[in-house]
Amino acid sequence: MIQHWSASAPEDRYFDPNPEQKQIALELYRQVADLPLICPHGHVDPKVFADPDYSFGTPTDLIIIPDHYVFRMLYSQGVPMESLGLKTLDGTLVEEDPRKIWQTFADYFYLFGGTPTGMWLRDELALVFDIETKLTPESAQEIYDALEEKLGEPGFRPRRLYERFNIEVLTTTDPATSTLADHQEIKDSGWSGRILPTFRPDAVVNINTPRWRFNVDALSEVSGVDVEHYASFIEALEQRRDAFKRMGATATDHSAFSPRMQSLSEREAEAIFGRALRGQATVEDAELFTAHMLMEMARMSADDGLVMQIHPGSFRGHNEAVQARYGPDMGGDIPVATEYTRNLHALLNRFGSEPNFTLILFTLDETTFSRELAPLAGHYPSLRIGPPWWFYDSWNGMTRFREYVSETAGLYNTVGFNDDTRAYASIPVRHDLARRVDCNWLANLVVRKVIDLYDAAEMAHAAAYDLAKAAYRL
Amino acid sequence: MIQHWSASAPEDRYFDPNPEQKQIALELYRQVADLPLICPHGHVDPKVFADPDYSFGTPTDLIIIPDHYVFRMLYSQGVPMESLGLKTLDGTLVEEDPRKIWQTFADYFYLFGGTPTGMWLRDELALVFDIETKLTPESAQEIYDALEEKLGEPGFRPRRLYERFNIEVLTTTDPATSTLADHQEIKDSGWSGRILPTFRPDAVVNINTPRWRFNVDALSEVSGVDVEHYASFIEALEQRRDAFKRMGATATDHSAFSPRMQSLSEREAEAIFGRALRGQATVEDAELFTAHMLMEMARMSADDGLVMQIHPGSFRGHNEAVQARYGPDMGGDIPVATEYTRNLHALLNRFGSEPNFTLILFTLDETTFSRELAPLAGHYPSLRIGPPWWFYDSWNGMTRFREYVSETAGLYNTVGFNDDTRAYASIPVRHDLARRVDCNWLANLVVRKVIDLYDAAEMAHAAAYDLAKAAYRL
Amino acid sequence: MIQHWSASAPEDRYFDPNPEQKQIALELYRQVADLPLICPHGHVDPKVFADPDYSFGTPTDLIIIPDHYVFRMLYSQGVPMESLGLKTLDGTLVEEDPRKIWQTFADYFYLFGGTPTGMWLRDELALVFDIETKLTPESAQEIYDALEEKLGEPGFRPRRLYERFNIEVLTTTDPATSTLADHQEIKDSGWSGRILPTFRPDAVVNINTPRWRFNVDALSEVSGVDVEHYASFIEALEQRRDAFKRMGATATDHSAFSPRMQSLSEREAEAIFGRALRGQATVEDAELFTAHMLMEMARMSADDGLVMQIHPGSFRGHNEAVQARYGPDMGGDIPVATEYTRNLHALLNRFGSEPNFTLILFTLDETTFSRELAPLAGHYPSLRIGPPWWFYDSWNGMTRFREYVSETAGLYNTVGFNDDTRAYASIPVRHDLARRVDCNWLANLVVRKVIDLYDAAEMAHAAAYDLAKAAYRL
Repeated sequence: MIQHWSASAPEDRYFDPNPEQKQIALELYRQVADLPLICPHGHVDPKVFADPDYSFGTPTDLIIIPDHYVFRMLYSQGVPMESLGLKTLDGTLVEEDPRKIWQTFADYFYLFGGTPTGMWLRDELALVFDIETKLTPESAQEIYDALEEKLGEPGFRPRRLYERFNIEVLTTTDPATSTLADHQEIKDSGWSGRILPTFRPDAVVNINTPRWRFNVDALSEVSGVDVEHYASFIEALEQRRDAFKRMGATATDHSAFSPRMQSLSEREAEAIFGRALRGQATVEDAELFTAHMLMEMARMSADDGLVMQIHPGSFRGHNEAVQARYGPDMGGDIPVATEYTRNLHALLNRFGSEPNFTLILFTLDETTFSRELAPLAGHYPSLRIGPPWWFYDSWNGMTRFREYVSETAGLYNTVGFNDDTRAYASIPVRHDLARRVDCNWLANLVVRKVIDLYDAAEMAHAAAYDLAKAAYRL
Repeated sequence: MIQHWSASAPEDRYFDPNPEQKQIALELYRQVADLPLICPHGHVDPKVFADPDYSFGTPTDLIIIPDHYVFRMLYSQGVPMESLGLKTLDGTLVEEDPRKIWQTFADYFYLFGGTPTGMWLRDELALVFDIETKLTPESAQEIYDALEEKLGEPGFRPRRLYERFNIEVLTTTDPATSTLADHQEIKDSGWSGRILPTFRPDAVVNINTPRWRFNVDALSEVSGVDVEHYASFIEALEQRRDAFKRMGATATDHSAFSPRMQSLSEREAEAIFGRALRGQATVEDAELFTAHMLMEMARMSADDGLVMQIHPGSFRGHNEAVQARYGPDMGGDIPVATEYTRNLHALLNRFGSEPNFTLILFTLDETTFSRELAPLAGHYPSLRIGPPWWFYDSWNGMTRFREYVSETAGLYNTVGFNDDTRAYASIPVRHDLARRVDCNWLANLVVRKVIDLYDAAEMAHAAAYDLAKAAYRL
Repeated sequence: MIQHWSASAPEDRYFDPNPEQKQIALELYRQVADLPLICPHGHVDPKVFADPDYSFGTPTDLIIIPDHYVFRMLYSQGVPMESLGLKTLDGTLVEEDPRKIWQTFADYFYLFGGTPTGMWLRDELALVFDIETKLTPESAQEIYDALEEKLGEPGFRPRRLYERFNIEVLTTTDPATSTLADHQEIKDSGWSGRILPTFRPDAVVNINTPRWRFNVDALSEVSGVDVEHYASFIEALEQRRDAFKRMGATATDHSAFSPRMQSLSEREAEAIFGRALRGQATVEDAELFTAHMLMEMARMSADDGLVMQIHPGSFRGHNEAVQARYGPDMGGDIPVATEYTRNLHALLNRFGSEPNFTLILFTLDETTFSRELAPLAGHYPSLRIGPPWWFYDSWNGMTRFREYVSETAGLYNTVGFNDDTRAYASIPVRHDLARRVDCNWLANLVVRKVIDLYDAAEMAHAAAYDLAKAAYRL
């Protein structure tokens, strides 16, 4: 994107204050600031690109409603979710006036002082929307006006922003049951943007997913394979992987409560799957089956070359009332301690040295950075560590990742940045922040004479561009 | 307190050395340095204030005997606890000469280099007692003399220090069985200091407490409710909470090995309580009953509005010989890893969004800062995270708290500082250190242009004063 | 060693960039840079010193083949271990051309950017071998030539390097079954170097060790005690400890998966030992017996005064294929989370306050630094915390150790530095790096006015020299 420095987004923001280090950080940053964005993992809806005239709606629709980072903070201080326009599942009345919602948000915006959301929002206003005014209760409506005006301009259609953001490739996340119709539409449209699907089979492989039976039927339908038993289930999944690959996918993505992986015999797998189809699977069945299916997915990845991503360790829907009222992904997911050394043992022994296999591992438990993840990635050829995720996608979180993981596993066993967001308009500022973290980290190594400026520039380029492209086979 | 900078307590001490950041830190600090002290959680004996002529005794009585931070360090290097004047339970002879004890302490004072105790002690000598001389084996007796002289002056009576320290409110910690007679005496005396009790029922709700049966009898007596079964136990506790409230209490405090919380049925609770009364409760009974009583206490807090504090995760009396010889709280308590996401699930689902309920959670396991506590507090309206406790109440511990908790949960889901001390004369320097940590952290955000100076000043004020006052309903 | 600063090893490298802090760090560093090296824990083969003409072989033999830090990183990026000259157990062909191996290493040397291995290797080339040229694919052969030439010089024989490195004492690690013949030879040679053995009985006390029965027979042979049952096993071990002591040993070293320690009755121990002799021990037997033998070893240390070291928490041979092909210690060992508070309870209660007993504890789980290790060491007189080990022996790892352990347990409950290496020629630069970390940490305390320069100098000296000498009774 074209950078335009300003009072609220000065070029040297965020870097450590030591003048010598800051100068080096700036020098490194200038070499990577305008590199194209590789976005190998995210949650933007492909519809956004399928329709060339797609509009984001109001500023509230763009910035508040889809962003659980935003509304969870307000909720934590007693602001009812209803007052933020979040739709309840049963349609109970909620605040619908976007200006009123925006005002509430602005009234509480001070809560974000020092947080990544605070940084992203200000940077987004300044760099994407040319808004320099500080967001306060007083300026709320004026900023709303300015945003509304911008969002009405043709330059703020998603495809135009894709170009302005200088995105080289952006992947979406799509259920195994997706027909990929939006992706087909994008392809057929002749537009040059590169939007690729990612295969996410959680809703069919985790047999304790709500409405799992329904999802299996959808899988049968979309794959053309009648899923009646375990063998046909596997066949249907292979069919979908193939369909995703043909649509350009290079990766899969897997969420699991635990990263436990362990093969069952065909017979055991068939027995559990049968119980699941009959609605008789136990909690233990579900856990074993997920562990088994992760192994199966690794086996398929070693075959078809789709890069495998695993995101474990979230206690989903911790707040049951919020989950019941609003559905999943509404800010009530909480991390748990996660073990990798033992849990990955079976998988890494079977596939960890397979040349065609890449596993990108994420964590919500940063205590494993230096104890488990860096030692594992510093040994197994197939393993790379994904960037700090969710609650760790912050200045300190990313800096710690470099100091705890990259210091011993090396930079090259990591995979660059993921924006991992539904908030499309925030993508460039998220990448920008990550590039700044890395340049700041490298500048510290340079000023302490750990590495020289030449190596630092190579490493900055790798972190900003090369590593993501290579690891995700883009 | 009136700050008087000096060679051993220069105004800019502790701040990071970058000149630009230090300047901002100083600027912020000057705005909060003289704010009144809110002391919402501590262990000063209310007797100290009940008697207007209370004297602290010798320098050794003031500084060494009551401070397990001090004598555990000396013990760890082979200094016998007897030689420090600590009284054994059975009255075995101990060193009794306060000057000799003070000399031993001074001989080993170098052990505290770089530790928080080292910082507090020097600051206390300089700022509370006007002693600039460095404590060394050579200067020990001279400093003792100076301290002794000061302690004899009327200005060093506890009530006078309360005023000089600019304390606005100070809470003590009192067992459920306390008659609160000292508090009544303070009230009756007409003195304007605000000393409030805090309700701590551990010794009656944890049925494995030594002498539990005795405590239950004391509870019957003080409450006037004959505790014969579970229902009357609950009634007696409610009576005490009410009595504490009437004496000005705004909070309760709970220690538990684990933060597990889980309701039993009335019948199960009654059965365990019955076994406990008959001296037949099992280890499992005790664990379940504590988990249940924490839920009960939360229920009562949601009713009566007393703010609930939980401090889990200490393996008390790890050194059994020391415990047997000297009793509890003698430096032999050691933290254990603690889990919150699952353990708080039941409680937060039941009370975590109740408007009248506030839970302030502490930890001895800082690995949960970013993984569990910040994500929980950044969502549930009733939850706030207490300041770094015990082994983490240090420059680095407090700084990490800000970087791991406040970065994602925001400053406003934390509650300011607790001095949490028996060492009354150290209170102002403990608050001063905490204010410095926060101003230093905020100055770093300002100099990196994450926040502006205006917001930083608001946040510094909140951290130093507003948050504690609001969270504890003072 | 004689320091000779140069472009690639400037005197002020690694220190934090703040000019004031760096100046103080340098001042402190200059006072300790030339202190003799105390090397109380390492893995250099005593043969190296037994033979006065011992030669290290080629540069590849010196730097790549023995260093699993080096080859695990290359392996992690897909370089086959065979191409690095690592010998397979079955003698399958491997690359044997040292120049070709060196070239491969140089081609991938960029992977080490910012890692401790990268820092050590550059410092070693510059300070030990006077090589200033940066190691790149292009300079690989020129550097190889220079190294080869140096290694041919008499000044690069191990005994000469010992003197040049200014080593005061260096300990090796020797199995309980060692005859200590090399040590005897060194003694007999009249050379003044002080090379001492360390007693490491893992292979006989961990009954699940591969070839355990064979090791027990070797123990019988070397001790002259016929190990037929548990009592004679204990007797043989005591004999060996005595033999080690007579050869100058001052310490023992113990690896264990878990630091669990727990005494069995004589009868239980005998029963398990009997099953082990008959090849019938279970997994549970092995775990219990290890826990028991750690207690036994503590008991013996309290008797004979050998300092006890425990290194728990490594999942050895995680990559089974690598282990099967190359044997142990080939880069496939991965840490696991480790618990100390409960696991050390029995041992510390029994021996933790014994005046003749010292336990030096290491960890691969730095989450225990502030939560468990510092609180334990800050209380028990017999416990000291060993320096950051293995994956934590890095700039950030060592700095964190100071900030998490020494801040609350004090510097004096730690034991200085261990080089812990097979790579003899890297020893001086490893100590140099550790001294820099400590001086940098102390300079930060000075510049923030936490301690004064006088105390900092005392502490720097202790960290660099006194603490290791005292803790290991050297």
